[in-house]
Amino acid sequence: MGNSRRPDEVSALVDHAVQGDRRALARLISRVEDGGPDAWLALSLIYPRTGQAQIVGVTGAPGTGKSTLVGEIAKYTRHHQPDRTVGVVAVDPTSPFSGGAVLGDRIRMRDLAGDDGVFIRSMATRGSLGGLARATTDVVKVLDACGCDLILIETVGAGQSEIDIARTADTVIVVEAPGLGDEVQAIKAGILEIADILVVNKADREGVQSTINALHAMLDLGAAPRGTLHHGVLMTTAEPPLKSDSRWHPPILKTIAAEGKGIDELMEAIAQHRAYLQDHPEGQQRVKVRAAVELETILRETLLQHLIEAVGSDRLDDLIAQVAAREIDPYSAAELLARTP
Amino acid sequence: MGNSRRPDEVSALVDHAVQGDRRALARLISRVEDGGPDAWLALSLIYPRTGQAQIVGVTGAPGTGKSTLVGEIAKYTRHHQPDRTVGVVAVDPTSPFSGGAVLGDRIRMRDLAGDDGVFIRSMATRGSLGGLARATTDVVKVLDACGCDLILIETVGAGQSEIDIARTADTVIVVEAPGLGDEVQAIKAGILEIADILVVNKADREGVQSTINALHAMLDLGAAPRGTLHHGVLMTTAEPPLKSDSRWHPPILKTIAAEGKGIDELMEAIAQHRAYLQDHPEGQQRVKVRAAVELETILRETLLQHLIEAVGSDRLDDLIAQVAAREIDPYSAAELLARTP
Repeated sequence: MGNSRRPDEVSALVDHAVQGDRRALARLISRVEDGGPDAWLALSLIYPRTGQAQIVGVTGAPGTGKSTLVGEIAKYTRHHQPDRTVGVVAVDPTSPFSGGAVLGDRIRMRDLAGDDGVFIRSMATRGSLGGLARATTDVVKVLDACGCDLILIETVGAGQSEIDIARTADTVIVVEAPGLGDEVQAIKAGILEIADILVVNKADREGVQSTINALHAMLDLGAAPRGTLHHGVLMTTAEPPLKSDSRWHPPILKTIAAEGKGIDELMEAIAQHRAYLQDHPEGQQRVKVRAAVELETILRETLLQHLIEAVGSDRLDDLIAQVAAREIDPYSAAELLARTP
Repeated sequence: MGNSRRPDEVSALVDHAVQGDRRALARLISRVEDGGPDAWLALSLIYPRTGQAQIVGVTGAPGTGKSTLVGEIAKYTRHHQPDRTVGVVAVDPTSPFSGGAVLGDRIRMRDLAGDDGVFIRSMATRGSLGGLARATTDVVKVLDACGCDLILIETVGAGQSEIDIARTADTVIVVEAPGLGDEVQAIKAGILEIADILVVNKADREGVQSTINALHAMLDLGAAPRGTLHHGVLMTTAEPPLKSDSRWHPPILKTIAAEGKGIDELMEAIAQHRAYLQDHPEGQQRVKVRAAVELETILRETLLQHLIEAVGSDRLDDLIAQVAAREIDPYSAAELLARTP
């Protein structure tokens, strides 16, 4: 776990956060986002409490209205199941939850901000490769441990990190909208294959049927069933494709999120998908995939941190300078470093 | 370097590719994209030949017309400097270079496809975190070593990986367009701070002046000069901000790429920025940052591969199952693995 300078403080912060102290929760999240020994200590402390929340990823191109949809899912849940608390994690830099919004969106989101049963957090972009994915899954774990029953992760769905983030959800909703110019956005971004539910939002716009048709055509072309995807280096045993006819077929739903239309059918589909995961081997498989992805992400950081501690920053700076001067190639430099005892 | 089963074959492929065999080049790129020992061997072989190309990143939201701009930069270069060869690496899944294009774009790109002095490669999305960034910088190195004088990297600029990719370029062009709905896209995505040149494309559209004004306002608010950004874990020594008045101020240019307008001014700005980097400490600093990012990326993979070899897949599968069953938290599991001798 490395050396935390403040193990007691971290432990106290975790205690307050899991007891429902919202300010402690916000501080704990910041600590976890920062990474390092304190974050890892906090995460190992909360880990036994995780695994309770339902995690729903909502992803799609800018302009599909997915933030509004996330807001509607949160509101619907709070209205119909007031005892369920909702966490929103906005990774999308264009999301109104993240501050990048037009006025109308902000006003719509304000309903949520006043509700103590809703916790909203936007993720900043991170300095290092893969850092955002690591930080996002960690923040989701904190919300899970602190009692959020439903956690919505909003991502823009255009980059590999965002796809990786969406993949860690129980249920992935891919949002489209008619008339965005370039045919169906999700297909190109390679995110269709991770979709459990497809939503064509802004369904009052012209071209909705051709968007739906395009999605149907893509699904019929046979995207791999989600459980068979290969996730990362650590999944050494490839699972056989699920051949059963009982496998999940992603429904295509229409919504007009800005008017709250179609949300009940969407919520029904989310519930059905949750029930499906509980009853089918794919559910267990997905838990295992998530564990592998988590372990891999953490391992990468852990191994690098161990190495930096073992090698020392002077030696690192020296090697970086040598690589920059092309006195050594970075592959050989990495091998040299990796062989440091 | 791990165990390559075909060191002689890889070495022969490298020889043919650097001698200008286009098919060998394409095969070498595929090998490098796949990663693993063969890729690393190939990359260490070509590394001494790298560092010659001028690398220009072009990034922006979908709909800004950046693919067309990339095509125009390539054509302009080939027309005015026929002895300079051009490589295009399209990471953007919506790029016409990557196959996701409307008919008009494809026709425009066809001019380039028939030119032996242009090599176009589109990157597939990768399975693992950070894999796309690693693969892209590696493909750029192959093109560099094989004699491409100018390498254009097109990214969608919406995800962290894409920002990391853009960061490895000598010159980063951020493309905007008026009337995309949501104010200025680049600002929200946090990519303004990595811009060396700002281009407002589709400058015949309504709203061009307000887009330019918004960009000016953001620049005046004082984005950090690019050389002072903190890049990744390995940059242990923070460099002081460059206080000199001679530092680079990103120009804001107007283009209509589809009509080839404004390209000469853009090419002039690219040349000026290149000259600036050669004459100023920021240029050296950027070389060092790139070396650190490269070394870090490779180290993460190297360390993980070493570990997997040392631990064995049975032990890994076992630990993944334990994490999935919540018998152990992934942080402790990672620590256990990382301490494997």
